[in-house]
Amino acid sequence: MDIYISGYGVVAKEFVQLIHDKAETIASRYTIKPKIKGIIIREGIVQSEDGLDLPRLLDYGVGTMAIKDYAKDSHYPIQPIDQMSGHVLVEATSTNGNDGEPAYSYIKQALTSHMDVVSISKGALVHHYEELMQLSKSVNRRIKFSGATAAALPTLDVGEYSLAGMTLTRFEGVLNGTTSYILDDMHEQDTDLSMSLQRAQEAGIAEKDPEMDVSGKDSANKLLLLAYRFFSLNNHIQDVDVTGIMAVTKEQIADAKASDHKIVLLASAVLDKQTIHMNVQPTSIPTAHPLANLAPKEKGICFYTEEMGRVAVIGGASSPVGAAGAALKDMINLVQANF
Amino acid sequence: MDIYISGYGVVAKEFVQLIHDKAETIASRYTIKPKIKGIIIREGIVQSEDGLDLPRLLDYGVGTMAIKDYAKDSHYPIQPIDQMSGHVLVEATSTNGNDGEPAYSYIKQALTSHMDVVSISKGALVHHYEELMQLSKSVNRRIKFSGATAAALPTLDVGEYSLAGMTLTRFEGVLNGTTSYILDDMHEQDTDLSMSLQRAQEAGIAEKDPEMDVSGKDSANKLLLLAYRFFSLNNHIQDVDVTGIMAVTKEQIADAKASDHKIVLLASAVLDKQTIHMNVQPTSIPTAHPLANLAPKEKGICFYTEEMGRVAVIGGASSPVGAAGAALKDMINLVQANF
Repeated sequence: MDIYISGYGVVAKEFVQLIHDKAETIASRYTIKPKIKGIIIREGIVQSEDGLDLPRLLDYGVGTMAIKDYAKDSHYPIQPIDQMSGHVLVEATSTNGNDGEPAYSYIKQALTSHMDVVSISKGALVHHYEELMQLSKSVNRRIKFSGATAAALPTLDVGEYSLAGMTLTRFEGVLNGTTSYILDDMHEQDTDLSMSLQRAQEAGIAEKDPEMDVSGKDSANKLLLLAYRFFSLNNHIQDVDVTGIMAVTKEQIADAKASDHKIVLLASAVLDKQTIHMNVQPTSIPTAHPLANLAPKEKGICFYTEEMGRVAVIGGASSPVGAAGAALKDMINLVQANF
Repeated sequence: MDIYISGYGVVAKEFVQLIHDKAETIASRYTIKPKIKGIIIREGIVQSEDGLDLPRLLDYGVGTMAIKDYAKDSHYPIQPIDQMSGHVLVEATSTNGNDGEPAYSYIKQALTSHMDVVSISKGALVHHYEELMQLSKSVNRRIKFSGATAAALPTLDVGEYSLAGMTLTRFEGVLNGTTSYILDDMHEQDTDLSMSLQRAQEAGIAEKDPEMDVSGKDSANKLLLLAYRFFSLNNHIQDVDVTGIMAVTKEQIADAKASDHKIVLLASAVLDKQTIHMNVQPTSIPTAHPLANLAPKEKGICFYTEEMGRVAVIGGASSPVGAAGAALKDMINLVQANF
């Protein structure tokens, strides 16, 4: 299996590390012989017919500069992206909430080159879901995106595989590890939001600009992508009613705690006849609720089905290796499954 | 897809109901046209080339007598089981803990007739796992058994699909809904075991002879089947160290409760180099543990992986329609997936 990776941040590097470490296991267990054929940066592709030299590549750092240095030292030219030719593109650029570029172009190029796509980034899918799915259909290729929908927490594939054929009436999730960490810290330490946010930033969990997470936008993106897949409806990000966590007060947390509840940033999608109601907002849930007992950085999703009652999945703490693992899983499942 | 069902208890009947109710959805979503071609009882097969008349069949009750009546009224002869010819056998006889018969014979016959198998019963797999897997391999057919490994709770497919390629170091589960109900009742009502067992029997949750459940044997069977699949090791039911719940006292429950713990019947498998340690026993776990907050009759499983941390799945309350749903899911996944 010839693999290209677009973007080379920490998750992409962890993915290379996983392929390097697990090549033999993957070959023996799934009869897949993975070969990383090229890496795409803004300037173009660095590639080799024989596959990149992974131990050497891993000696470099992360980011565009690392790849440029690696290319230069290895005497690889940087080629235009339409020179991509392989089986799967692992899209790992950082999510662009505005227009989904450059991921959008990379994904289109891969599909046009008759490659499957495993997307870790969300932007292109959030903004161009229908177009990309139609394109993938027209070339008989697939787009998988566990990495974009809570990564190490299985969400997409539990809905599509473990609950195949069941009637899903709604689902709700705690889909963002950063806000989960912050609200948990407020709950445990009785602090106010600004303090817990600062602590999360100091711990390297929240970004310096935490807007995407604390505003609820990241959760809304994931919710939308899951709803697309599970309910096959034609909605847009504007249809998600979003309230972030910035207005959550110490007092609200204390009140919830006093009544054996916990406040989480809950993302929910409810199917009501042919209409779907999508909502992200801080919500007080009983401590016995499966989504109330997440360890720091963990996420969770709860499916409600007619036949099997509720099925909740929790865990998959946010981490670069976890996100890389989600992409590896998707890649294996391109071979293991037909959807 | 031509389907046979062996056994015709409540779960089998719910399966027929699901196929009847969902035929259109299944056809449009998965391009599978399910046809129930025959039902196998001790005396042989009742079958029809055109498929059984489901609305008519559903007017009869459950059990062998219902099928005999249906066959008689429909003028169908009862044929020998080697007359089975279709795509999949749904094995739904009641689990026989001694030798796995008659399921064992039915499964062998189906494989020999080049059919896939979806097993809801456990006995044949627990006793003849290796032989049946080898036979299925030799005829290039597959055996799925979600229905035998906690049914509506996704266990097998989360491990095989959602965690594909990950390094699983151990897993632990609350795999039996009846003991879960009893221990929960003791916890909530401060009663002793005999009282809670009696209540579970009155509620129709525990059987009159609750031995399989309360002894831990049912959990041990499920644990073994999961361990076979996840760790590909060569173990037997005798290798599972089993303690049931009968010796759990009111005082132990009270002690656990006082320290924010809960006693559950925990089934665990730990991989230690090439050895696997399998254990079923009443275990005190903190209330924040994902397996400590199950609603009555729910089950749960917790996977520990190197790449994704822990991933827990809980829910899937025990019910006939849930078990039938698990078989339907497996049947769809025979088409959706290649393993």
